Amino acid sequence: MPQTDTARLLIACDDQPGIVAAVAGVLASHGANIISLDQHSTDEVGGRFFQRTVIHLDGLAAKRPALEASISEIAARFGMEWSLHDAAKRKRVAIFVSKYDHCLLELLWRTQRGQLDIDVTMVVSNHPDLAESVRSFGVPFVHIPRGEGPDAKAEMERRQLELLQGNVDLVVLARYMQILSDDFIARIGAPVINIHHSFLPAFIGANPYARAKERGVKLIGATAHYATADLDEGPIIEQDVTRVTHAESAAELQRRGADVERSVLARAVRWHAEDRVIVHGRSTVIL
Amino acid sequence: MPQTDTARLLIACDDQPGIVAAVAGVLASHGANIISLDQHSTDEVGGRFFQRTVIHLDGLAAKRPALEASISEIAARFGMEWSLHDAAKRKRVAIFVSKYDHCLLELLWRTQRGQLDIDVTMVVSNHPDLAESVRSFGVPFVHIPRGEGPDAKAEMERRQLELLQGNVDLVVLARYMQILSDDFIARIGAPVINIHHSFLPAFIGANPYARAKERGVKLIGATAHYATADLDEGPIIEQDVTRVTHAESAAELQRRGADVERSVLARAVRWHAEDRVIVHGRSTVIL
Amino acid sequence: MPQTDTARLLIACDDQPGIVAAVAGVLASHGANIISLDQHSTDEVGGRFFQRTVIHLDGLAAKRPALEASISEIAARFGMEWSLHDAAKRKRVAIFVSKYDHCLLELLWRTQRGQLDIDVTMVVSNHPDLAESVRSFGVPFVHIPRGEGPDAKAEMERRQLELLQGNVDLVVLARYMQILSDDFIARIGAPVINIHHSFLPAFIGANPYARAKERGVKLIGATAHYATADLDEGPIIEQDVTRVTHAESAAELQRRGADVERSVLARAVRWHAEDRVIVHGRSTVIL
Amino acid sequence: MPQTDTARLLIACDDQPGIVAAVAGVLASHGANIISLDQHSTDEVGGRFFQRTVIHLDGLAAKRPALEASISEIAARFGMEWSLHDAAKRKRVAIFVSKYDHCLLELLWRTQRGQLDIDVTMVVSNHPDLAESVRSFGVPFVHIPRGEGPDAKAEMERRQLELLQGNVDLVVLARYMQILSDDFIARIGAPVINIHHSFLPAFIGANPYARAKERGVKLIGATAHYATADLDEGPIIEQDVTRVTHAESAAELQRRGADVERSVLARAVRWHAEDRVIVHGRSTVIL
Repeated sequence: MPQTDTARLLIACDDQPGIVAAVAGVLASHGANIISLDQHSTDEVGGRFFQRTVIHLDGLAAKRPALEASISEIAARFGMEWSLHDAAKRKRVAIFVSKYDHCLLELLWRTQRGQLDIDVTMVVSNHPDLAESVRSFGVPFVHIPRGEGPDAKAEMERRQLELLQGNVDLVVLARYMQILSDDFIARIGAPVINIHHSFLPAFIGANPYARAKERGVKLIGATAHYATADLDEGPIIEQDVTRVTHAESAAELQRRGADVERSVLARAVRWHAEDRVIVHGRSTVIL
Repeated sequence: MPQTDTARLLIACDDQPGIVAAVAGVLASHGANIISLDQHSTDEVGGRFFQRTVIHLDGLAAKRPALEASISEIAARFGMEWSLHDAAKRKRVAIFVSKYDHCLLELLWRTQRGQLDIDVTMVVSNHPDLAESVRSFGVPFVHIPRGEGPDAKAEMERRQLELLQGNVDLVVLARYMQILSDDFIARIGAPVINIHHSFLPAFIGANPYARAKERGVKLIGATAHYATADLDEGPIIEQDVTRVTHAESAAELQRRGADVERSVLARAVRWHAEDRVIVHGRSTVIL
Repeated sequence: MPQTDTARLLIACDDQPGIVAAVAGVLASHGANIISLDQHSTDEVGGRFFQRTVIHLDGLAAKRPALEASISEIAARFGMEWSLHDAAKRKRVAIFVSKYDHCLLELLWRTQRGQLDIDVTMVVSNHPDLAESVRSFGVPFVHIPRGEGPDAKAEMERRQLELLQGNVDLVVLARYMQILSDDFIARIGAPVINIHHSFLPAFIGANPYARAKERGVKLIGATAHYATADLDEGPIIEQDVTRVTHAESAAELQRRGADVERSVLARAVRWHAEDRVIVHGRSTVIL
Repeated sequence: MPQTDTARLLIACDDQPGIVAAVAGVLASHGANIISLDQHSTDEVGGRFFQRTVIHLDGLAAKRPALEASISEIAARFGMEWSLHDAAKRKRVAIFVSKYDHCLLELLWRTQRGQLDIDVTMVVSNHPDLAESVRSFGVPFVHIPRGEGPDAKAEMERRQLELLQGNVDLVVLARYMQILSDDFIARIGAPVINIHHSFLPAFIGANPYARAKERGVKLIGATAHYATADLDEGPIIEQDVTRVTHAESAAELQRRGADVERSVLARAVRWHAEDRVIVHGRSTVIL
């Protein structure tokens, strides 16, 4: 899947006439062919504008500095935030887990099969249980337990940060059962994707399946979102649900929901890996 | 659809051995044939037991008293709550609306086509707008406005109760924009089904589509539930969702959601009309 | 919904570098602002390219000839097929029906509510049954029966063509139970959208619900497609399905399926009305 | 999951009054408690009747012969086919594969996690590729290649039959790329479940994803069915679909479809393992 001489250009700016033409003109002037272009304006007039452009450019590596210089010029003119991603350069991903393995295995399995274009560089866990499973995929497993005492969590996070900083482009919480401190999120230096086992904003917090059973809902779901300082409040990347009935126990909801969690998290990580997700306030634009 | 000589027996009791055999034995001894039987136990042992049995009995009307006497006997033995419904006797339904017509028209249209086996005996509204639409279906439309002053709501509800008490078997709130008082719900003498325009318990309360847009959810939904004194907290009968993207405005979510509301409410009313719904605490069993 | 000074430009051509830039450049040079742009290439290299661009241009009517002249120039250069549609000009639609009214009513109802931006200029039927329903929407109903004898069908189609030619931009077959002749389709001068009551290519031809029941499928569906000389073989615009079980009779499948037909046809007509559908061989691109 | 002292009774007979009562009476007379009971009549009158009853009976093993004798009596009276399955006795399953591993791994993984209550006693393949994956689950892998020459297939099937006869209760074809001979199916002595990678009856036969792409369908699907002498024509157990667009290549349809295949096959095997599936002519009843 990694594609040579292919790049993805993401831009965001206030909406205004001439953006598409200006970007397309710059790309054409450097000999880049547009493979696909998706854009979104939040309003017909006066809103925010987002665009993802996939380009092919023979000899991308050599021509990239000149291309970036030209993009910088129009970015200054239009007040754009922008980034250019080499499609051949896989993102380095750390997966955090505790004891549940279903989300973890789905990611490892899809990566191994070439369905998820990432490099899982390490799996970090506060429990030792999943070491063997992880290592059978040829992926390093690092056990960082949470000790006792008032500083245990801070100490655990300090060791995690040592391991991660500079080494990863993405952290995925694959049913990791510890709450990250605000400080940790601020310092980790990479986006964090979490899977929550409910259809947010329903059942924020702990034990969503038990609460779904108690409330008698007819659908259960899962939500993948960027983790922020506010628990379960970060921008939603993907959600899905499955139909349940009164006949299913809370344990069966958990088992059914696990399948939804797997597919929702896999799609969210894939879209992020393909540079399709742009955060816009509390929500996301998927291009 | 109304079926002569067909009845539906609903029972609920603590789970215990021999219930199915006892009920089936009584029915067989009266010459009733079981057309369908659905049951549910909340736990394998020691839970609550629910059963819906559809029977055919030639000359049902004449034989009904004797059958009921026999059922009463086993009901006493097992501590059952029970009810026996003649399938040929349509439920009398009052629909409450304000200005939105999509849920109302769906119900009237399906009833007219024979897809909803109810008699809509009246439509009650606090606004006059929908009178003509309703009357074109041959259904009475009663305009009971909410006046001014501190007693306006109580006065409106007093007039509604006069109209309804004894005359209806079910009240459907088809996007009725007034909150019913606890007293009204207690005195109405019939179950009340409400459609809420979100996937409860997400977005309880007002303006769910605007809040869904703001939160950036990827699915929007609707929930039909029995109305109770706690707003949006009654037992859920049916829910469904539809997928949306960042590209849809709050107004488009509302339009998309209206389609979900229509089908969810129609299913909930149909199941209630067919005596398929049993309330169990805060949830429902659909048999 | 009709939007002044808004136009939709559709283009299709062999894929080649520089198309997006050239089109965006022309639009910018005429002062048109790009509201949205969607494109699709059938292959990364050497395939077919499609683009839909929605533009805003103050004083569109007056500036349109000059804009079209410029588009013609680049169209010649790139070998493009193209068309420019004024968003304020609703398509004139004739709906063909026989006796089933569910698809017809869905279209009339959505049009009346402003959810379908079309003008239904007439409903044509070979049966008189639905005249009153149609006229209650303020829409003309024309009864063209099929007579007796070998020329009856040709005579019916002759009368239909007289009525339609030059008067409509789209014909919708809303469960019309007559097969159109190849000659009729060739001469009608407007695209024809048909709704087929199965998930094509399963159950091509007559009685799909009965055959679905017999085959024991677990999902039933509906397909909206452009009608071509080959029955049920035209390019598919939209499809959907709903889950069924062994417990549903063929009559119930038909009732359940009717709901799917309604929503699938409504979406297909809406996408066509918004100039989102481009035919590509036997399939469609929806932009 | 295997449940001691729990059994599942399946019955099928012509519909007639008194069946439920008679069965419930027999069960009660032996002290069996009905945990769940599901039944289905193909018609209100004069059709075929099916029932699945899950019972709890302390000391099932010792009491089973007497219970079976009583069931035999009423079975003779009502003309019933019946079978009684001990829930604690897992079905022995052989999985056939070729080179694709996604369906195989889903079954092995769910079995390992306790989500699929079967014993996978062997995996049989005409290719050696998946040996290591299979053995890592502790499951025997048997490579029976297809040789050269006119008798190669018969010889391969002869070796397979030697291995299977008497040793398995179910054979699952998890994307096995060889067509079974009629003779093989007749002699295997166990039901065979196949997964077909399309929404049958659409795209019967080879290369369904390529044909789905060519036909331009908007949904792709998968079908799990019992294998019979007629290829892709056996009774359907489960089907599902997922939405696709023009933007996805045939290769992407295949990747997307693989996820549907996994979940559809897993559900079908689970229902079979739980004795929920009764074949009725060309279709199935799922209780």
